[in-house]
Amino acid sequence: MSTYPEQGGRDDRDTRPLEVGVLIARKRDGGELEPDELRRLLTAYLAGDVDDAQIAALLMAGVIRGFTDAEAVALTDVLVASGDTIDLSDLVGPTIDKHSTGGVGDGTTLVVAPLLAAAGCQVAKLSGRGLGHTGGTLDKLEAIPGMRVDLDPAALRAQVERIGIAVAAATQDLVPADKRLYALRDVTGTVASSALIASSVMSKKLAGGAGHVLLDVKTGDGAFMKDATAARELAALCVRIGEARGRRTGALVTDMSQPLGDGVGNALEVGVAVETLRGTRGGRFRALCIELAASALSLTGVAPDEADRRITELLDQGHGLERFRDFVRGQGGDPAVADDPWAVLPQAPVVLDYAPGAGHVGAFACQRVGELAGRLGAGRQRAGDELDLAVGLEVLVRTGDELADGQPWVRVHARREQDAHAVLAELDAVIERSADAVAAPALVAARLGLDADA
Amino acid sequence: MSTYPEQGGRDDRDTRPLEVGVLIARKRDGGELEPDELRRLLTAYLAGDVDDAQIAALLMAGVIRGFTDAEAVALTDVLVASGDTIDLSDLVGPTIDKHSTGGVGDGTTLVVAPLLAAAGCQVAKLSGRGLGHTGGTLDKLEAIPGMRVDLDPAALRAQVERIGIAVAAATQDLVPADKRLYALRDVTGTVASSALIASSVMSKKLAGGAGHVLLDVKTGDGAFMKDATAARELAALCVRIGEARGRRTGALVTDMSQPLGDGVGNALEVGVAVETLRGTRGGRFRALCIELAASALSLTGVAPDEADRRITELLDQGHGLERFRDFVRGQGGDPAVADDPWAVLPQAPVVLDYAPGAGHVGAFACQRVGELAGRLGAGRQRAGDELDLAVGLEVLVRTGDELADGQPWVRVHARREQDAHAVLAELDAVIERSADAVAAPALVAARLGLDADA
Repeated sequence: MSTYPEQGGRDDRDTRPLEVGVLIARKRDGGELEPDELRRLLTAYLAGDVDDAQIAALLMAGVIRGFTDAEAVALTDVLVASGDTIDLSDLVGPTIDKHSTGGVGDGTTLVVAPLLAAAGCQVAKLSGRGLGHTGGTLDKLEAIPGMRVDLDPAALRAQVERIGIAVAAATQDLVPADKRLYALRDVTGTVASSALIASSVMSKKLAGGAGHVLLDVKTGDGAFMKDATAARELAALCVRIGEARGRRTGALVTDMSQPLGDGVGNALEVGVAVETLRGTRGGRFRALCIELAASALSLTGVAPDEADRRITELLDQGHGLERFRDFVRGQGGDPAVADDPWAVLPQAPVVLDYAPGAGHVGAFACQRVGELAGRLGAGRQRAGDELDLAVGLEVLVRTGDELADGQPWVRVHARREQDAHAVLAELDAVIERSADAVAAPALVAARLGLDADA
Repeated sequence: MSTYPEQGGRDDRDTRPLEVGVLIARKRDGGELEPDELRRLLTAYLAGDVDDAQIAALLMAGVIRGFTDAEAVALTDVLVASGDTIDLSDLVGPTIDKHSTGGVGDGTTLVVAPLLAAAGCQVAKLSGRGLGHTGGTLDKLEAIPGMRVDLDPAALRAQVERIGIAVAAATQDLVPADKRLYALRDVTGTVASSALIASSVMSKKLAGGAGHVLLDVKTGDGAFMKDATAARELAALCVRIGEARGRRTGALVTDMSQPLGDGVGNALEVGVAVETLRGTRGGRFRALCIELAASALSLTGVAPDEADRRITELLDQGHGLERFRDFVRGQGGDPAVADDPWAVLPQAPVVLDYAPGAGHVGAFACQRVGELAGRLGAGRQRAGDELDLAVGLEVLVRTGDELADGQPWVRVHARREQDAHAVLAELDAVIERSADAVAAPALVAARLGLDADA
């Protein structure tokens, strides 16, 4: 652990008077705060010398007036400097972090991290729990019997050094200010700001210590950022912040108008990821995993075409699967999950199919798909709720598919019959069915900070 | 005392869930809150169920996006309903309140209230203390030996009934939410909003119970609202709020680019007011007192020309002076102040003249004049400071005047020699001196809600 280098230490106190009212008024009137002013203001806030109400007013002014790039970078710096940071700089091989802004059926980390490890990269990833309608990597990993995600930074680092991959929960000491600021934003209508979201995301990536950062910014109904333009702006800002702080950073803006993987629910997503690593499941999830891993690898200096070729080969030859097995074993999980996932993972006792009849698959109410999985028990209604790791939805179709009568579209995995029927009753309203052909949405809407702008 | 009639009582609780985040977000995005939503939100805030930070964010959104008239009225209603109100409806004769937004040398209440009482009106006025560079009526009255301003609402009402005029401090139970909200606005950069200022001003006028309200909105360097357009907007909004709540309301926007009366300091302002009532001092102060009293009288249905004639006559015939004497006696003060003010009022031991030489009087740094009086001891540097009621500045010139060499421009009344010299040393920078003729600024910039738009 080390102090964040760009900041010169957390105890770098300034003795000039801090004119909080003047700074708030300047932001209110559309002006800009200097990095040092933002740093001092937020440092004083974290020390309890500036009120929640003053920061709430400042954030609201910024949400409406906008924050500059320099302000977003300064804010990121303050967040990073509020806690410990992880130093991975002496690891052999490029260090990589990959981050998704969250979606439905979005378990790509389980495939991308092993592929990157197989390609010689060091992947030390700090992950989160499910939030709202979206799943969280930590919850998914816990569906594997024995798997531990509470590695401390030293254990995380040691495992990365040994097998090139580790995924753990962020400790309380890492970017503590982000948690404090998010709690304030959550109740004051100041969440929806590219600069505030980007500084929150990037502060955790910078504190995590990886030299290369690939972001998967989701857009569409199942994403937090539903608007494509806003998602692209967020992605671009994240890239600029990362690059401003010396990390090679790239971003993909990808489709979340429909579930990404076939599994929506913790064990189901692990099973789908294993089948993808085993080469027995394809589709958009496999395609995006390859694209993400290749893009991340290209950040380390490998030419995009070569990165794509190498990642596909590692996947097809089973090297990703081997790294996944090592990773699971390393964190106490049952490695047999890599061989026969459905024999190892918990399974729901009730499985019912949704087969609405012949037709073309139209648009998804994608957020609702995540919410229905949550209602079955796969997600939390409130923080601290215990999850049912076995339940969820298996989504067998995607927008643009054409199906015959009797073919299942969705398979509901539930704890009780009545839960399954309650979900089945809603699915007509969740997936459109059309007599006419429907176009499939593009998987990748934009690439930022990457050499290949294909 | 009664409950504010428009509100249906303070205990009118609503059991629907209050979606604070939704309301803040709507205001953030430029939308409008319904009166009932604002009422419930602020009621919950005052009850401690909504955080300071949430209200600060909402206020900042409103300051930037603007509040509608309906929102300003609703906010006023909530403020009024937060405490007790005074019922003057059964008094004989029209009840009048007159309010200035605050200025330098602005002791018009001491002349206007007695003139209105002499004209048959009932003036029950709740006043405040000095704030920043401006004086407060209560402080000025306390320069009269024996004068009490701590009348409770019953005593205030009884005195008005007896002699037509009473001036007292507002109790803590009147519009308590205004104090709470102002403290929050003061530290969160959300003071500068017409709607928030107007609702604060008008809530106190509505709670005070008068059926007719005349506002004197100051503009120029010595006013809080320095911009004339903003002052006019504020005045117009105050008039609309008052009329929306059934009070005949008018407003004058008047010049505060220079001190209004010749006295700036508590005893000095009382002395100047008495001399004005005695007819021995004229100028802009006398002119505005007549204009304010006549405008207020016109709100009660008297034709403007007739109101002006009647007020001037009452002043010239000494009826205002008699009412002033009754008023002082009624609140325990020495009535001899009406006969020989300088013999009764406290006097400063050091009086030095500022006489910069021949020339035309240019612009004033008017706020600075108030600050200099404050520095001599006439104002508070912080809440709770004890005042020196004798000290201040006597301002003998106004912008546009032409003076010969040796004539005094300002007379400094100080406790100590060094205090007087310190102020004298600053006056060159406070009043411009010009070789060329300078135009005098208009006394009244706008009239709103009054029949005579002369």
